[in-house]
Amino acid sequence: MEKRLKSWQGWLLFLLTMGVVFVFGVLAASITERRAETASIFNNRKTEITGIESRNEAFKDNYPREYETWRQTSDTSFQSLFNGNRAVDVLEARPNMVILWAGYAFAKDYLSPRGHFYAVDDIRATLRTGAPTSPDDGPQFANCWTCKSPDVPRMMQELGVETFYRTKWAALGAEVVNPIGCADCHEPTNMNLQISRPALIEAFERRGLDIARATHQEMRSLVCAQCHVEYYFKGESRQVTFPWDKGTTVEDMERYYDSIGFADYTHKLSKAPIIKAQHPGYEVALTGIHGQRGVSCADCHLPYISEGGVKFSDHHIQSPLNAIDRTCQVCHRESEATLRNNVYERQQKANEMRNRVETELATAHIEAKFAWDKGATEAQMKNVLKLLRQAQWRWDFAVASHGGSFHAPQETQRILGNSLDKTMQARLAISKVLAAMGHIDNVPMPDISTKAKAQKYIGLDIPAEKAAKEKFLKTVAPEWLKKARENGRIIG
Amino acid sequence: MEKRLKSWQGWLLFLLTMGVVFVFGVLAASITERRAETASIFNNRKTEITGIESRNEAFKDNYPREYETWRQTSDTSFQSLFNGNRAVDVLEARPNMVILWAGYAFAKDYLSPRGHFYAVDDIRATLRTGAPTSPDDGPQFANCWTCKSPDVPRMMQELGVETFYRTKWAALGAEVVNPIGCADCHEPTNMNLQISRPALIEAFERRGLDIARATHQEMRSLVCAQCHVEYYFKGESRQVTFPWDKGTTVEDMERYYDSIGFADYTHKLSKAPIIKAQHPGYEVALTGIHGQRGVSCADCHLPYISEGGVKFSDHHIQSPLNAIDRTCQVCHRESEATLRNNVYERQQKANEMRNRVETELATAHIEAKFAWDKGATEAQMKNVLKLLRQAQWRWDFAVASHGGSFHAPQETQRILGNSLDKTMQARLAISKVLAAMGHIDNVPMPDISTKAKAQKYIGLDIPAEKAAKEKFLKTVAPEWLKKARENGRIIG
Repeated sequence: MEKRLKSWQGWLLFLLTMGVVFVFGVLAASITERRAETASIFNNRKTEITGIESRNEAFKDNYPREYETWRQTSDTSFQSLFNGNRAVDVLEARPNMVILWAGYAFAKDYLSPRGHFYAVDDIRATLRTGAPTSPDDGPQFANCWTCKSPDVPRMMQELGVETFYRTKWAALGAEVVNPIGCADCHEPTNMNLQISRPALIEAFERRGLDIARATHQEMRSLVCAQCHVEYYFKGESRQVTFPWDKGTTVEDMERYYDSIGFADYTHKLSKAPIIKAQHPGYEVALTGIHGQRGVSCADCHLPYISEGGVKFSDHHIQSPLNAIDRTCQVCHRESEATLRNNVYERQQKANEMRNRVETELATAHIEAKFAWDKGATEAQMKNVLKLLRQAQWRWDFAVASHGGSFHAPQETQRILGNSLDKTMQARLAISKVLAAMGHIDNVPMPDISTKAKAQKYIGLDIPAEKAAKEKFLKTVAPEWLKKARENGRIIG
Repeated sequence: MEKRLKSWQGWLLFLLTMGVVFVFGVLAASITERRAETASIFNNRKTEITGIESRNEAFKDNYPREYETWRQTSDTSFQSLFNGNRAVDVLEARPNMVILWAGYAFAKDYLSPRGHFYAVDDIRATLRTGAPTSPDDGPQFANCWTCKSPDVPRMMQELGVETFYRTKWAALGAEVVNPIGCADCHEPTNMNLQISRPALIEAFERRGLDIARATHQEMRSLVCAQCHVEYYFKGESRQVTFPWDKGTTVEDMERYYDSIGFADYTHKLSKAPIIKAQHPGYEVALTGIHGQRGVSCADCHLPYISEGGVKFSDHHIQSPLNAIDRTCQVCHRESEATLRNNVYERQQKANEMRNRVETELATAHIEAKFAWDKGATEAQMKNVLKLLRQAQWRWDFAVASHGGSFHAPQETQRILGNSLDKTMQARLAISKVLAAMGHIDNVPMPDISTKAKAQKYIGLDIPAEKAAKEKFLKTVAPEWLKKARENGRIIG
């Protein structure tokens, strides 16, 4: 027995033990190596960064992986459906939106959003910012830059926040030149997540909350919530303000706006006092199951990836459907095709209702104009205007909250259903106003079947605006860039 | 080295091995014991069961756990909200439904569903089945029994299916006496899951599918889909038929009904040709994420439970919220409170839209009646009637598919949104018809604030119906039970 244990059983035991120990050694080495590599990145930074460094390229050498993936936001391709970095002309695809925004700059020009990389290019190029010829010229103020660049916190520090909001948009053309990037979400000196814009901090404060106490996981959404939210420009100060004081649902914010008698514009056709929803993506996501379960924006839009020994966040912020293996499938076991179709199905159900609302609500605005033209009184139209305001707020809220039909499918469907409800109530009310004035026939409808026709109908001279913009892009904009380069605001 | 291995290392190794082997032995014994106990249940059945055994009590001795839990369907308590086995009077709570069903038996009496245990009691007691005084008397046919009892497959075999459907309801009063139970879903001789009703098998066949090829997991839903589906009584034959030939969505089935020009009734007020949705729970569940992921009805409504060495399905079919630890939490890690609130939130969003539809659709039916009364023509009303049919089909489909707002929240919200859309289109169209006839004022609305007032408005004499029903329950129904007992149709 002893002899046999020695001769082969003992040796077997010995070899097995060696084998197991060896495997553990390999694993331990692998872990140590990863840690070492990660530590070496942070301990051997090549560039010393101080202050609010707004030039994204300054971070390139220290954080090559994050920088390179961030730079990929220049690629807006989506599953081969869209070509490279081209945007979709939404007004061309859905001309009713021109009618809905009559009296507001969005009726002029509205393209599908491209990557963060184009934030500054695109705001310079859109007709919405006009064609200023001098620093004091043009329709917009600097608050319009607020979400477009890490140059904004730098300029806010330099000018003071109050002065920043009051400055004209064109006055900062040579300063705001780097697109949304590193310093928007990170403290440049240590790369901690940070809130760089005051509006979110203030909104928390007004609700008795201290954003400094947010957890890291919360911060992985809150850095996005600096911009991907509903906001408005407050009174004379033009301060960017979140209407969250009464809560963050579509009804909560409407109560806030109603309580201060706010409207972004008076509708050019119906005269309804319209609230333009911005992009309440964060608020809508809070009402969906992913948000409710604590999934952060970054979990899906900046998914983790491994390269060599380093695990890092992929900064190519895009649709998670472009990387299902690293997004959905981290938690869900279904196939890519199944998961993708689950998303598409949610979108299709929401789009069905959205299309109905856009058709009916555009009709309602046109019918309201007809009623005014026929001599309807303020008293007769009061309820109509209220319903149109409510309907349009709900429609815009649902449509502008990018990804809402996936982030919160039922809530988005509920909001759109309520929008259609208010819209149809408005149409019914207008029909009664018209009948009371003796007009019982259908209201004649203009041809708004294309973007150009709809824009002409609401009295826009787009060719003139385009010509001015082209001139601006050939003369003023290059001057801005030249000056920025001279002042060292741009690297490369 | 040799010596030491012998003296303590050898013994340690030996003891450790013994220990591990012992634990494995215990586990193996536990498994064997469970298997043995389960096997003993099936091998030592106390009662020999042959043919279609419709008496649930006949299964009591063989399958005491399943029988006892099934018997608990007599307890309809739901989280202390409802008291014991009492039902809620839905028409009392929502009198608009009386208007919506004007011209159909549901306007007389509609209680919230109770457990399977009460299926036969409740159908005898509802005003919808009238108060027949003889086997050939009364408003309903035997197809009305179809889903109520395992006596149905027995009688279908005895009479032939065609004859069964053509027999009057009262003629089978002494035969259909055991509530929904064992033989509805199980082959009585071996307890395999089975489809006992022909309509589901036929619906599969018409779509080129063989239900015999369904997997066990599919059968765990399909046995429920024998009854918890949309169906209609086909023409003269009164054959129970599922309108699935073009698909199972709300639009698919509408296209089917439209294609055969079917209506359950002509609305008493609006004259719209109405399709009464039954309870398309299965079809709606197919469109939700649980259904799409292959979760069966039984997974949540007959959850597994362990008693002693036996794991079995809890046959107390009820809301899964009454047993979250054995239903939701099998897959979901969240707390009971969180999961319950997730369900409630979905229900509240759907109920918000449902309430709007019921208010507006009831109004639309009343306005349509007003238009007819004022002399509207068939041509003027054609589009109104179509819209009312579409609106009501969608409303009823969403509301009648019990659990739909949880099973498929977005789909339910979509259907209700579309219902409201059609409803408001109908109201707008009626308003134009009325204006064309010179009526521009609001249509006067009757007081329908209670069930009694609404029922009186639509011309029902409920006190008379109640008196007749009471007499029926005191005279005819006891005779049925007496005869059933004499013929051995009931145990105990």
